[in-house]
Amino acid sequence: MEDLNKERIDELSVNAIRILSADAIQKAKSGHPGLPLGCAPVGYEVWANHLKHNPGVPDWCDRDRFVLSGGHGSMLLYSLLHLFGYEKMDLDAIKNFRQLGSATPGHPEYGVTPGVDASTGPLGQGMSMAVGMAMAEAHLASVFNKPDHPVVDHYTYVLGGDGCMMEGISSEAFSLAGELGLNKLIVLYDSNKICIEGSTDGVFSENISERMEAFGFQTIIVHDGNNLSDIEDAIYKAKNDTDRPSFIMIETQIGYGCPAKQGSAAAHGEPLGDENIADMRKNLNWPCEEAFEVPDEVYENFKEKANRGIEAYKEWEEMFSEYAKQYPEMKEKWDNYHSGFDTKALFESEDYWEIPEKAEATRSSSGVVLNKIQKEVLNLVGGSADLAPSNKTYMKDAGDFSKEDPSGRNIRFGVREAAMAGISNGIALHGGLKPFAATFFVFSDYVKPMARLSALMGLPVTYVFTHDSIGVGEDGPTHEPIEQLAMLRAMPGFTVIRPCDRRETAAAWKYAMESEEPVALVLTRQNLNQQAASAKDISKGAYIIKDSKDTPELILIGTGSEVDLCVKAADILSEEGMNVRVVSMPSMDLFEKQSDGYKESVLPRNCTKRISVEALSSFGWGRYTGLDGKNISMDVFGESAPAGELFEKFGFTVDNVVETAKSLTD
Amino acid sequence: MEDLNKERIDELSVNAIRILSADAIQKAKSGHPGLPLGCAPVGYEVWANHLKHNPGVPDWCDRDRFVLSGGHGSMLLYSLLHLFGYEKMDLDAIKNFRQLGSATPGHPEYGVTPGVDASTGPLGQGMSMAVGMAMAEAHLASVFNKPDHPVVDHYTYVLGGDGCMMEGISSEAFSLAGELGLNKLIVLYDSNKICIEGSTDGVFSENISERMEAFGFQTIIVHDGNNLSDIEDAIYKAKNDTDRPSFIMIETQIGYGCPAKQGSAAAHGEPLGDENIADMRKNLNWPCEEAFEVPDEVYENFKEKANRGIEAYKEWEEMFSEYAKQYPEMKEKWDNYHSGFDTKALFESEDYWEIPEKAEATRSSSGVVLNKIQKEVLNLVGGSADLAPSNKTYMKDAGDFSKEDPSGRNIRFGVREAAMAGISNGIALHGGLKPFAATFFVFSDYVKPMARLSALMGLPVTYVFTHDSIGVGEDGPTHEPIEQLAMLRAMPGFTVIRPCDRRETAAAWKYAMESEEPVALVLTRQNLNQQAASAKDISKGAYIIKDSKDTPELILIGTGSEVDLCVKAADILSEEGMNVRVVSMPSMDLFEKQSDGYKESVLPRNCTKRISVEALSSFGWGRYTGLDGKNISMDVFGESAPAGELFEKFGFTVDNVVETAKSLTD
Repeated sequence: MEDLNKERIDELSVNAIRILSADAIQKAKSGHPGLPLGCAPVGYEVWANHLKHNPGVPDWCDRDRFVLSGGHGSMLLYSLLHLFGYEKMDLDAIKNFRQLGSATPGHPEYGVTPGVDASTGPLGQGMSMAVGMAMAEAHLASVFNKPDHPVVDHYTYVLGGDGCMMEGISSEAFSLAGELGLNKLIVLYDSNKICIEGSTDGVFSENISERMEAFGFQTIIVHDGNNLSDIEDAIYKAKNDTDRPSFIMIETQIGYGCPAKQGSAAAHGEPLGDENIADMRKNLNWPCEEAFEVPDEVYENFKEKANRGIEAYKEWEEMFSEYAKQYPEMKEKWDNYHSGFDTKALFESEDYWEIPEKAEATRSSSGVVLNKIQKEVLNLVGGSADLAPSNKTYMKDAGDFSKEDPSGRNIRFGVREAAMAGISNGIALHGGLKPFAATFFVFSDYVKPMARLSALMGLPVTYVFTHDSIGVGEDGPTHEPIEQLAMLRAMPGFTVIRPCDRRETAAAWKYAMESEEPVALVLTRQNLNQQAASAKDISKGAYIIKDSKDTPELILIGTGSEVDLCVKAADILSEEGMNVRVVSMPSMDLFEKQSDGYKESVLPRNCTKRISVEALSSFGWGRYTGLDGKNISMDVFGESAPAGELFEKFGFTVDNVVETAKSLTD
Repeated sequence: MEDLNKERIDELSVNAIRILSADAIQKAKSGHPGLPLGCAPVGYEVWANHLKHNPGVPDWCDRDRFVLSGGHGSMLLYSLLHLFGYEKMDLDAIKNFRQLGSATPGHPEYGVTPGVDASTGPLGQGMSMAVGMAMAEAHLASVFNKPDHPVVDHYTYVLGGDGCMMEGISSEAFSLAGELGLNKLIVLYDSNKICIEGSTDGVFSENISERMEAFGFQTIIVHDGNNLSDIEDAIYKAKNDTDRPSFIMIETQIGYGCPAKQGSAAAHGEPLGDENIADMRKNLNWPCEEAFEVPDEVYENFKEKANRGIEAYKEWEEMFSEYAKQYPEMKEKWDNYHSGFDTKALFESEDYWEIPEKAEATRSSSGVVLNKIQKEVLNLVGGSADLAPSNKTYMKDAGDFSKEDPSGRNIRFGVREAAMAGISNGIALHGGLKPFAATFFVFSDYVKPMARLSALMGLPVTYVFTHDSIGVGEDGPTHEPIEQLAMLRAMPGFTVIRPCDRRETAAAWKYAMESEEPVALVLTRQNLNQQAASAKDISKGAYIIKDSKDTPELILIGTGSEVDLCVKAADILSEEGMNVRVVSMPSMDLFEKQSDGYKESVLPRNCTKRISVEALSSFGWGRYTGLDGKNISMDVFGESAPAGELFEKFGFTVDNVVETAKSLTD
């Protein structure tokens, strides 16, 4: 090591990223070399000299976060994690890039690879998650830090390219980041002027820095993406602005180092080819010929570079232990934030399960319940995409998150549903906080791509979707959900709950608060009657809310606002001597997870006359109503009229349920 | 009329919009007065003095387009249509605002109300549709116009507020609009600094004009939204910039004119109240006391104002008739563009139905077929969200749409899936062109909100979604669709087709080209065998591709890539003596539309042993497989590995189909 000067060691270290990336992609015969080669210097500079991280403790809560928003460039991240000696990331992991069960999947996956702070790949989403992380940091810092004890004090870096900057979600997220003055957010933009279809000319030549400045960012340009000291200067400059987030545009060459491909779209998404990699080795003055071979000096350099973070970790541990001693009440609070508040008493209290005497919209039930929870669960943060008064999601006395005071727990997301969901994922990923996000159910469409990442990452984000059917009424078909239940129910790892009254709504919120996965609450605009027999435990997804005297000859299955119709229809049919069972099914997803025995006890196989009643698409009901059943459903778009008239027009009446039942049993 | 000077007539006309809006919303006890009151002057100025429109011919193809992106402000538009005397828009229509079956639904609906150029309500989407309309205009102008015969020559106006500007889709669309130099696009921004949750301070105080300038717009500010001549100057300035689209920020007061509510969030989305409206009448110096009463002078003024457009229409008709005479070949072309190309010969040709000898990915089949179609159907325009090489959607020799040459038919949308779909809707709404839009199937998530509007409006947009399952392979779960088929199939008015080979792909494209509704083609990344018995007509959605000797005891239902598995498994099972039928079901949506008789002929009721085989979510299959059937499906997220290994791991093998069949019939 003494033989090599710093410049040569840096050069070798940067090129080690390039070589490992090229070799891994070549071996896998699949992958995206363009970004790892072009961004190797910025990756190296950030991780080696700025990012606060401890390879031995990848989940250190006060580490700097790093989100690779351009997730296709995963080999950049994997190379760094390998060189820094992260767990699981030995050379075999690199050699098994993109293979079944490896720690190096095609795109970075949270929970699979230590050191990966977010699953990325769908472009733009990483930008919003980084904004969420920076918001979490700002909030927690405002809650926990004491003079001389800044126990929450870290940066969030996010790296993305042209694709991430073109996606609308990043504009939404950046606009809010600027508004909130998230000065510890550093956006690294890999500007290479190449997209998959070729040059960005004629597609994306807008003045990006000017746009970011309009959003309220400090903007910095690094003209030579291979110049480490320019990158370093830019990062210092970013950190020195304590008022605004920073945007560093780094001009790079896609696939840099590989003479045959650099600067062209061909470098983006396919292996470079053995010969081209051999040429690249020469071109980069790389000292080893074997694939995956890296000089010892490089590993030594990374080991040395890791010490900065290891030291920082030790100092933090010492500081935190002093903090815990000096502020025992804060330590207790900290534990609650990070390991969960004890909600046993709350969920066993009579108050929590209080039922109003009159009909109530489940959105209002939700508002009441949420406010009971938020008083106990102080790390609950969230808000609406500018619909809090309609969604009933405002947390009283919990303050508004703002630039001036990030300790507020109500987040005003603005009319930015996509960023709201991405930010919520980022908050959940950061840790320490429980996020929720709200909008009209029909706009779950805008939330869907991010809800999918909530599910894929297993993040306990609570989605509050109100105005859940033609009960929307006058606003008409653009605002009336139809297929949204099917869309969300079909998604793995995502639990949808549509409660029928206050009690089921309270049960749904309890379920959401205890869930380790994302949960969506689907709630009405219109008032619903309180059901005498609704359940406090909806964790099995469906249950008998009203049973027949003898063996049921007909089963009515309802959810949400339609349970009341089923119960009333059953009353009439029972009086006429029919053995009718009514099943309330607040959650198909939860019911699907039950044992065959439980399912049989609710929906006995030999009773094939079944009717589902739900004012949304029938799609997905066939597995319960089978070939003999019927669906009272909405399989067309709604209309604009008072809600009562719509329910009447589309057959959501007790009479129609009764008639349909008779037609089935005749 | 002589008694009143121009200023007073203008004032009365502007206030007529306010009064009608307030009265209609009050009568409906539902609606959004904020925008119609605040924007009455801009609405009046644009429609009365600039918009080229003929109330008697609302579908005149060379009219200026007007999109009310803030669709909740529908009464602004309805008031104008009423005052200008549009068909169906008499005073009764206004009085029936938001009632069942009226011409005045809660949000503007294309096809319901003459003069409504687009359905709006989901914020931001109107902005993208306007961009699409302006692109259609630019393209058609470049194709059809002759010196002295500018037969296509109109502006597109779009009006929206803070919500529309916050939504990511508008940033995507504006970025592309700037790139393409759509100088005949005029964006009117109602800047009132109020959103539903209150002031936009702390939520949306970015420098919006600077952002729009960064996107490549001319930006103009009107500081007093009540000053008609300032608005007029701004519009002239917008038209005078022949290089860039224009953005006019108009500072307004929400709910202007109603003293109790103006300038506050309370004006946004609820009736003003009878007393407040009475006060408003006084405050505005309104001469009539009765609700819905408008002075005759106002109607006369609008009648006079309408003449400008009626004259323009006459002049256009004369010009077009000369054009038709002078350029008969152009007239023929025009008719083809506007009434459809004759594709009979194409779709009957042997060449169209040519089958390759080897296995082929359906995305490649699609690329071949698309290129056969585009040579005949010259008004086919479209492209991909930066994935044309992967989606196989590039139309050879058809040129690229660019600022310099908008006659190109390949649109490079950039990584902007949302805007792509919204723009496609706008192109379809404009008329004269047939748009298609492509991306990876998993990113149909980003397209969904706009695809919903395609369906609601009944627009024949063709969506090309490739990489349709875990066949994606190494890119892993973020890129592997699971629930997307269910999401799209559950949507009314939207046809999803997943073909199994080249022949079904050709049939699917034929169906899409002949459809008057949106159609999605769902295509593989990986190669598929050509089926001997696949159909040229898939319009019934499902058919028997291989039948049993005797009455079937088991039915295998496959779609797309899984049809081959079913056929091969049936071969094995048949040899073993089982009577197995194989049904290819390229489209559930189309099958659902068939007669009970046809359905019974394909899936006989008495054969309840049915297995669906589809490498996506089982959600929705229950209606065909019932309570006795099984689903071979993907109900978890995928993984990153070579595709073959994933199909093996998740049970998409002939062996597994055979075994499942045996387990069901044992």
